[in-house]
Amino acid sequence: MSSDRGRFLTVEGTEGAGKSSNIEFIRRTLEARGLELVLTREPGGTPLAEEIRDLLLQPRDEKVCDDAELLLVFAARAQHLTQLIRPALDRGAWVLCDRFTDATFAYQGGGRGIDLARIEALETLVQGDLRPDCTFLLDLPVELGLSRARQRSAPDRFEREKQAFFERVRDCYLDRARAEPGRFAVIDASVGLEAVQRQIGAQLERMLEAAHG
Amino acid sequence: MSSDRGRFLTVEGTEGAGKSSNIEFIRRTLEARGLELVLTREPGGTPLAEEIRDLLLQPRDEKVCDDAELLLVFAARAQHLTQLIRPALDRGAWVLCDRFTDATFAYQGGGRGIDLARIEALETLVQGDLRPDCTFLLDLPVELGLSRARQRSAPDRFEREKQAFFERVRDCYLDRARAEPGRFAVIDASVGLEAVQRQIGAQLERMLEAAHG
Repeated sequence: MSSDRGRFLTVEGTEGAGKSSNIEFIRRTLEARGLELVLTREPGGTPLAEEIRDLLLQPRDEKVCDDAELLLVFAARAQHLTQLIRPALDRGAWVLCDRFTDATFAYQGGGRGIDLARIEALETLVQGDLRPDCTFLLDLPVELGLSRARQRSAPDRFEREKQAFFERVRDCYLDRARAEPGRFAVIDASVGLEAVQRQIGAQLERMLEAAHG
Repeated sequence: MSSDRGRFLTVEGTEGAGKSSNIEFIRRTLEARGLELVLTREPGGTPLAEEIRDLLLQPRDEKVCDDAELLLVFAARAQHLTQLIRPALDRGAWVLCDRFTDATFAYQGGGRGIDLARIEALETLVQGDLRPDCTFLLDLPVELGLSRARQRSAPDRFEREKQAFFERVRDCYLDRARAEPGRFAVIDASVGLEAVQRQIGAQLERMLEAAHG
């Protein structure tokens, strides 16, 4: 990797893991070092990709078939990569993305049971060899996360799914983290926010040293 | 193919080829024989797929990248196949669809220059081995079709593309028809409507004889 290219960071986790607060913490930490940071999310990140996100998340009477859901997610991703992520990395900015393809494996693969090989085929088609440089996985027991999330807002279509679904999502995330220990930083998100941020801060220090050392 | 299964017919052609009038003619002809006919279109055919169609066709400031366009088309198609087309064929209905995957090859492949192998990979992923039983290709010179289309309504994003684009679309359609002469019925759409419908009617007679003979 050229040292002029930015780093691509993603944050993953099941419902109620505290993604928003910790993304804000990562942003503050990196901007305090004078880095240009592009903060974005999936599905979304461009006007068209956000419209696709709305299609995916809105409750609807029509059953959304697995392949349609999967292809919509990758359509939004293709647009996001072309319009926002790749240009930012190319000019040296760091990109911090709230969910990325690991979420597709976890939710559509682990959760809905779509064949992982179908997801891998689309990942290669859309991303080529682009993968995150570091993925923070905020991990906590499903029941704790759901009880946190329920206090926050009305449940969307995904949050209404039953607990067994989220157990499969968590298992899939953890499988992926075990398979790629160099890319994943697994963060214990069941503890208080300060203790979570100490774990994240330590990982960021290691990355900054590697990037500039 | 089981004789209980319905037949899957598609109608293709560049702008101004007279698809609407001729689809109506095919519908009347088949319904007069007592067949259950499901009339539908792509992109579209279900509420979600129609919302995806709106995303694709509305003019927008943001450039839509090739892969996003391609994946949106196949997302709508996956939903359409699962919710409408396969159930109809399975119960013995005939399906008449205004555009299908040949249009993706012609517009996104021939027109926009997306690698045909990418389209073939998605075709196999989404459709398995399902292909139309008969495709009516309404063929006419591009300039004649565009002059007809311009008299009809305000141009949408695709219709505004330049003539060279539509020449590539037409060439791709004709290449596909030459490669699969058993599936394609190439109809000369440059002549008057009655003469077009005589050609279509003769093809329908052959199909009905084959289906019930």
